[in-house]
Amino acid sequence: MTDSESAVTAGAARPGRSGRGGKRERLVQAAVQVFHEQGVERTTLGDIARTAEVPLGNVYYYFKTKDQLVEAAVDAHCARLGALTARLDALPDPAARLKELVAGWVGERATAARFGCPFGTLATELAKRDDGPDQAAAKAVRALLDWVESQFTQLGRADAAALAVELVAAHQGISVLTHTLRDPGLMAAQGERLREWIDGIAGR
Amino acid sequence: MTDSESAVTAGAARPGRSGRGGKRERLVQAAVQVFHEQGVERTTLGDIARTAEVPLGNVYYYFKTKDQLVEAAVDAHCARLGALTARLDALPDPAARLKELVAGWVGERATAARFGCPFGTLATELAKRDDGPDQAAAKAVRALLDWVESQFTQLGRADAAALAVELVAAHQGISVLTHTLRDPGLMAAQGERLREWIDGIAGR
Repeated sequence: MTDSESAVTAGAARPGRSGRGGKRERLVQAAVQVFHEQGVERTTLGDIARTAEVPLGNVYYYFKTKDQLVEAAVDAHCARLGALTARLDALPDPAARLKELVAGWVGERATAARFGCPFGTLATELAKRDDGPDQAAAKAVRALLDWVESQFTQLGRADAAALAVELVAAHQGISVLTHTLRDPGLMAAQGERLREWIDGIAGR
Repeated sequence: MTDSESAVTAGAARPGRSGRGGKRERLVQAAVQVFHEQGVERTTLGDIARTAEVPLGNVYYYFKTKDQLVEAAVDAHCARLGALTARLDALPDPAARLKELVAGWVGERATAARFGCPFGTLATELAKRDDGPDQAAAKAVRALLDWVESQFTQLGRADAAALAVELVAAHQGISVLTHTLRDPGLMAAQGERLREWIDGIAGR
């Protein structure tokens, strides 16, 4: 059965496009959540179906393999990042945008203490592989670095690329420590430090 | 069969204690290597036996479960860290010790670009769980932080604990970026920056 045949068949069986879209979306959001909580390798399609409250048999209509859900989860992370940076771009000042980015990280510290950075731990797990999903994850990391770099460029820094690496690394690193030591206070303290650092760079 | 019975049986089958100790050690080193390359969840006891060149049947004499090999691998990382800090302690100057620690990380940048930090990625994977091995990994992270903190204390810094977190987080974070972007140059640049930062703290 080709993809288009399968879509026609499934369309006949399940009336209404919105219902189908809702299930796919629920599966992707469940995949993001369960991959974050358990990691990819410990997760079965059954785990995701259960979390999404979608019958396992239906999952195969949307995703033939777990890797297709991994790719969809990485895409969902990219979309979230895009939505976040679009919100931050509404702030007039690059330093305020960067500090708001950091504040968002700090706001997630309780979850980070239990499960790590939702995207960083996924990217770390995928990067052990070299068969496709690792490259999608790399693209998302680059998108974040590019956005952060453009803020430092707007602050007049010629070393904007290096500063972006430093900031994102500081977040990923404190996520690892917050997670392995189960200590959200580490993330809060790093957030304080990074906000002062950003103010220093912005010259205020 | 109890552990002691199993030891007697195996002892009869394999003369010489040193041979048996050698096999266990080979299995642990293979576990460290394969967990680093593939992650714990993607690794089977068969993978470890093959890498160690030990027949799979023999593995069960030393390790009943993969988790026992995980614990042994974490112990091996702790032992490596202990040996490393003992070597660094031979240097007379705390700043030189810290810079040598950083130089060691930079020296491993090619492997980090392919497989991430050997210990950090293991700890990250284990920290998704909460059934034992995660706590062993946390202990190893704390041992590194304590050692780094004591160097900053010797440099006269009252904020030695915070500086230790900052340094170890900087390394873990750049490991995540080096790994996900497959770019050893990121680790080299971060090493340069950290060595200058240490010199700044040491007041030279």
